Amino acid sequence: MKVKVGVSARHVHVTKEDVEILFGKDYKLTKKVDLSQKGQYACNEQVTLKAEKGIIEKVRILGPERSKTQVEISKTDSFTLGIDPPVRNSGDLSDAAKITIIGPMGSITKNVAIIAARHIHATKDDAKKYGFEGKDFVSLVVKGQKGGILENVYVRLNDDFSLEVHLDTDDANSFLIKNGDEAEVIVK
Amino acid sequence: MKVKVGVSARHVHVTKEDVEILFGKDYKLTKKVDLSQKGQYACNEQVTLKAEKGIIEKVRILGPERSKTQVEISKTDSFTLGIDPPVRNSGDLSDAAKITIIGPMGSITKNVAIIAARHIHATKDDAKKYGFEGKDFVSLVVKGQKGGILENVYVRLNDDFSLEVHLDTDDANSFLIKNGDEAEVIVK
Repeated sequence: MKVKVGVSARHVHVTKEDVEILFGKDYKLTKKVDLSQKGQYACNEQVTLKAEKGIIEKVRILGPERSKTQVEISKTDSFTLGIDPPVRNSGDLSDAAKITIIGPMGSITKNVAIIAARHIHATKDDAKKYGFEGKDFVSLVVKGQKGGILENVYVRLNDDFSLEVHLDTDDANSFLIKNGDEAEVIVK
Repeated sequence: MKVKVGVSARHVHVTKEDVEILFGKDYKLTKKVDLSQKGQYACNEQVTLKAEKGIIEKVRILGPERSKTQVEISKTDSFTLGIDPPVRNSGDLSDAAKITIIGPMGSITKNVAIIAARHIHATKDDAKKYGFEGKDFVSLVVKGQKGGILENVYVRLNDDFSLEVHLDTDDANSFLIKNGDEAEVIVK
């Protein structure tokens, strides 16, 4: 079972309220380009991330607005910033690391930084068809000079999802995976 | 079979001639700290790496001097610099990427940048004892939230070697491995 891999660079999700703090009253996010998952898009808007040890500039906001502001970075980024975010599924901010998000009109400091867990987007039909119905996790087999197996790929099911594995840039760079590559999904 | 993992940050090996270009005539490298492999050490001397798209400062030189100058970076670093280095065993500079090394007294531009292949240092006795005698490659099993299996870990045998797997920072950050952690070596 070959599945397309999407590589997620560091990015930020924001609430409507936080958009107004970062970009000004009544500001609306603007779409730059649609992403592979229905209704999701990269925005023209970018922010700066700051923590005790460093800053990372030009971090893209992904739209639309969400119910929680959330910063997704890689372990590599966490060393640049000097924070120790936990690995979490999107939306789970338990023990998330403190980070400052800086926009052109204001900034926010919140415990919202996580390393996104590896995950696969699929429909229930995909899960049935490819043999991971009822499974919480699958594994990803990657070939090549720095190949191997990425485990603990969390299964996220929704009938609007396009079948795709999402990895962060550390996973992609470790295994020499490019956005849009295909890899094999297995059930252990 | 649990083996200690050493995480190799980006670094540079240099010839005696290139030390003099970078640091001045008759300059000798100075030891900062011994490394785990016998006779190898981190130097006080640091250089800047430069390529078309960017620079990386404060890159450490490892001593002693070698017969070839060699720059070992991660895939992540290669995006910062804008080069596409091959994955190679140390000492194999075939198709290595062009890079500029800048020291306080001079600079060198050479095709010497590689991504170091995953490898294990061991003695012949270690290989026999742990079941990878005669094997060119082993695999590394890593537990944890971002666990999995790193394949194509090249076996390097020398009776002076201390038993240790060397990974680059992309592999370490992808799998949440810290320098000095232990992981299981398996033969496929």
